[in-house]
Amino acid sequence: MRLILRLTLSATLVAAVMTTIQATEVHSDGRVTFRLRAPQAQSVAVAGKGKGNGMGDEPHPMTKQPDGAWSVTIGPVRPGFHYYELIVDGVPINDPSSPTYFGWGRDTSGLEVPDPALDFYTPNPAVTSGQVRILWRQSKLTGRMRQLHVYTPPGYDRDIDKRYPVLYLQHGAGENQTSWTRQGKVNHIMDNLLAREKAKPMIVVMAHGYAARPGAANPDRPSREDNLFQQVVVEELVPFIDDQFRTIADREHRAIAGLSMGGGQAMRIGLEHLDQFAWVATMAGAIDAENPPAVLRDPQLANARLKLLWIGCGRDDMILERSEKLHEKLTQQGITHVYHLSDGSHEWQAWRKHLWELGPLLFR
Amino acid sequence: MRLILRLTLSATLVAAVMTTIQATEVHSDGRVTFRLRAPQAQSVAVAGKGKGNGMGDEPHPMTKQPDGAWSVTIGPVRPGFHYYELIVDGVPINDPSSPTYFGWGRDTSGLEVPDPALDFYTPNPAVTSGQVRILWRQSKLTGRMRQLHVYTPPGYDRDIDKRYPVLYLQHGAGENQTSWTRQGKVNHIMDNLLAREKAKPMIVVMAHGYAARPGAANPDRPSREDNLFQQVVVEELVPFIDDQFRTIADREHRAIAGLSMGGGQAMRIGLEHLDQFAWVATMAGAIDAENPPAVLRDPQLANARLKLLWIGCGRDDMILERSEKLHEKLTQQGITHVYHLSDGSHEWQAWRKHLWELGPLLFR
Repeated sequence: MRLILRLTLSATLVAAVMTTIQATEVHSDGRVTFRLRAPQAQSVAVAGKGKGNGMGDEPHPMTKQPDGAWSVTIGPVRPGFHYYELIVDGVPINDPSSPTYFGWGRDTSGLEVPDPALDFYTPNPAVTSGQVRILWRQSKLTGRMRQLHVYTPPGYDRDIDKRYPVLYLQHGAGENQTSWTRQGKVNHIMDNLLAREKAKPMIVVMAHGYAARPGAANPDRPSREDNLFQQVVVEELVPFIDDQFRTIADREHRAIAGLSMGGGQAMRIGLEHLDQFAWVATMAGAIDAENPPAVLRDPQLANARLKLLWIGCGRDDMILERSEKLHEKLTQQGITHVYHLSDGSHEWQAWRKHLWELGPLLFR
Repeated sequence: MRLILRLTLSATLVAAVMTTIQATEVHSDGRVTFRLRAPQAQSVAVAGKGKGNGMGDEPHPMTKQPDGAWSVTIGPVRPGFHYYELIVDGVPINDPSSPTYFGWGRDTSGLEVPDPALDFYTPNPAVTSGQVRILWRQSKLTGRMRQLHVYTPPGYDRDIDKRYPVLYLQHGAGENQTSWTRQGKVNHIMDNLLAREKAKPMIVVMAHGYAARPGAANPDRPSREDNLFQQVVVEELVPFIDDQFRTIADREHRAIAGLSMGGGQAMRIGLEHLDQFAWVATMAGAIDAENPPAVLRDPQLANARLKLLWIGCGRDDMILERSEKLHEKLTQQGITHVYHLSDGSHEWQAWRKHLWELGPLLFR
């Protein structure tokens, strides 16, 4: 086999893939060492992206060794997932040693700092895993093919008479349909909820959260045309999913949730379409308490129609105050809801925890 | 909705995701303009990665405008998929405006230049798409969870009594289980083959092509321990797939193919396990004609047991000479095989074409 390898790969290719990249190193105490080989660079720094990022708000200058290798050790860094970038002579770049994740409108470096106290979002070797299915769907409203991700629980292919409730789960601004799988670990969280018998088996649909009319210049960027995305979900996506998967196709078995921008979308779409959804949740995406969807001005209707209204927020999240106000307003009005505060900022680690808390409440 | 967006997103985040990134521009004549904003950089260039890359063998220096924007227009660039990098003050980086693809041992920028003459690997809006399923599987041999991608054809969930043949399809060195989907467009190619009734419906399994014993330092890098990967496929993966999917679980309905390193693996695994595989194909991954697996020294056995032995290569591929030698040797020995030359170099555009040619020959 050595012969085959030698013969079928170019020397260049082998050299490149065999070279050990100086990988980012997460130490057991939570400190993190970043490295970059850049002999000709004048300055190199590493910076977390986003307010309240676990890596701190300011760039961390890296220092150069005589051999051209730059490095810095920072932290301890808060456990969880943090977007970041390296800055080489003023140019923000992805870290060559990091996997990239779609966030900030493009593929962006991400740092995963394990939390030794938590194992709910890591793959569980003891169970058969669910599947995340990548599908393409032609959309009449946008005139484009749209990719979506769909989680199906373990056993979906085996129990072929069983039908499932569906959770529609949206990403944040600058992210896309891959983000709940890649950054959020949705499949591992759902697998673990099911393995511990904490949640009902459900299908989770993760759609591309932007929509623009045919011919739009930037169809994949956050759009203010949110009525169009709402239309895509209600008129196209829900019927498509009910056609393609073994769903229980009624409002009592359909939930919608999302984080940040996606939380606003979930509240708007869910609360304005209670004929379609009976379970509505937002993670760090609270709506304006003074200007809510109509149903939230009618406590009797809201309580009669909503199986669950769930509002989650991190204690250090920038939208905490807004979430508090919404919670107070709903409480004053006597609208039944769950208000859940988790540790964390406006970040994936909080949303992973939110899904872990929300999952068991759905479809009971 | 504007209100909600404004309130639930930080100003920083909105600014970042709304900023139009100066995207790489592919012109209608095949020329390509690359751009990077880097006011403080001393030099910026763009370079294709790999010998015979459609972008040329040498870096293309970019020129700086007074506002700090660098750019260069090159080409025409050969249609297809090309790995590339930007070089900023000597540091190779990913292009911030490019999606990344796992190749060269890490997430790497890729340029897609459309071929106006070809539509077999683009999404087909007229048909229901197949699914690419992401699964995780605990491996006893490696002591790790291994991710795999599995393509299921349209109708798989509907025709629940139908069973399918399986093609095992391997990536090249430095790539992984995601590459046939992301770079190779395997699902679009299979969907189009099926829509045109050129191939039989089949399941396509794309495994992580590296294997190392438990505790190995670099389990995800190309390993010389190829007997272990062979063992993983034969002892673990095939039984797992036959358990989890509705396969026709015999050699006459099981094929193995791969590109480059994966082509060598497919030849070795397939030809050394003819009790498991009757269809064997290599794309630009020819083995040494003087040192082949035993069955290729026994024309009678080979012809009796092999339903297909398929050897594909690009006319400009660096391993063309080796492929030619193998073809000649097999011809001399009277071993029935298909030798297929396509346009192209050691590159994805050739392998997409190979799959398009190979698919219709399988399971006939």
